[in-house]
Amino acid sequence: MTYTLVLLRHGESEWNAKNLFTGWVDVYLSEKGTAEAKRGGTLLTDAGIAPDVVHTSLLRRAITTANLALDAADRHWIPVKRSWRLNERHYGALQGKDKKQTLAEFGEEQFMLWRRSYDTPPPEIELGSEFSQDTDPRYADAPVVRTECLKDVLERALPYWDGEIVPDLKADKTVLVAAHGNSLRALVKHLDGISDADIAGLNIPTGIPLLYELDEDLRPLTPGGCYLDPEAAAEAVAAVANQGR
Amino acid sequence: MTYTLVLLRHGESEWNAKNLFTGWVDVYLSEKGTAEAKRGGTLLTDAGIAPDVVHTSLLRRAITTANLALDAADRHWIPVKRSWRLNERHYGALQGKDKKQTLAEFGEEQFMLWRRSYDTPPPEIELGSEFSQDTDPRYADAPVVRTECLKDVLERALPYWDGEIVPDLKADKTVLVAAHGNSLRALVKHLDGISDADIAGLNIPTGIPLLYELDEDLRPLTPGGCYLDPEAAAEAVAAVANQGR
Repeated sequence: MTYTLVLLRHGESEWNAKNLFTGWVDVYLSEKGTAEAKRGGTLLTDAGIAPDVVHTSLLRRAITTANLALDAADRHWIPVKRSWRLNERHYGALQGKDKKQTLAEFGEEQFMLWRRSYDTPPPEIELGSEFSQDTDPRYADAPVVRTECLKDVLERALPYWDGEIVPDLKADKTVLVAAHGNSLRALVKHLDGISDADIAGLNIPTGIPLLYELDEDLRPLTPGGCYLDPEAAAEAVAAVANQGR
Repeated sequence: MTYTLVLLRHGESEWNAKNLFTGWVDVYLSEKGTAEAKRGGTLLTDAGIAPDVVHTSLLRRAITTANLALDAADRHWIPVKRSWRLNERHYGALQGKDKKQTLAEFGEEQFMLWRRSYDTPPPEIELGSEFSQDTDPRYADAPVVRTECLKDVLERALPYWDGEIVPDLKADKTVLVAAHGNSLRALVKHLDGISDADIAGLNIPTGIPLLYELDEDLRPLTPGGCYLDPEAAAEAVAAVANQGR
């Protein structure tokens, strides 16, 4: 018995394209991101992978990516589950800021610490400010989040993994998770047993489904999984690593 | 205590535009239908109606309408429930046939009987034929359906109304149902207590949210509900009545 899990990072958003820190700000996909999402669905079809259920964050760029990919894969009709626990990392006071400007203002060391440190969150966002979500009705049942490091993301994503995704896998469903760079990095860290230090070097490209076949103990048969378009994934990973430069 | 229900018939589909009997054939929205769906979301926002949960059929034109309308209304993140019980009426052997040709071939009386009779279904579709859904995996948990009259639609929709929609209403949620001309006519017949004879004269236009405020016994405060764009609804109803002419 093996379980089938597919991770899909949303296509390029309007703020990815503008090089802004986004976090929980609910931006739209760019035109390129829309095309990436549809292609993600075509890659699923070409690989013969038919998701039985989809899990998304509460953010438009992941939700729209799931909608477009599943429509392209003729699986638009499957059950949908959503949770804030799959949201992108909350970028705290950096939300809405330009990555290049932030790098210039705070310097390489601080910038990379905020972007890649496992357990150092950016400064907290001011409640009630333009890019804070503290009064957003969609988070009525969630704690107020003001900033997060990757460790925080893993800690709030794991209960959802254990409580909602694993039961679907164990019911022998092919599970699609449409989420974000950091919430997916958190899941991959957990799945592949990546160390706190090594996770800094892992980037997940947008719009390319990442397939994990898992054994009965939910260990990946192939560590790191398999991208459905490995060449495009390798190119995109290199590009993501250079963001903010 | 009043409950808030919004019914939304999908925007124009490619087969509405071509004047073909569609039923369970899973066609795409037309460009016009896409625009109608987005406008449906804008009408919700303008009326201050914020759905807390959406119920859809398993058909793309209703699912896409819900996705687009909710995105336009900034409610893309709400929980989603789907069921074949909200599907359009199965049009039997007429699925895929031109409405005008069918009218010419079978005559006005038979044509109107199939289209508007409460309890006379069209001939059954041949299993395994091009427009049959008998092997479609999305209906694995549903009975095989080969044709339906409106009475059949009501009978298979009511368990979903009672079991899934009413509990959401009674939990004080604003409920959006994105579905089809005939599955929504069935719900309206039930809600407004319309007779088997009178339901023949009721048409529901595409893309215009129909608001029902319901009392504690789920009786409409305003019989027939209120369209969020009453003028456009009246025009569209007249146009639907002339289909096939």
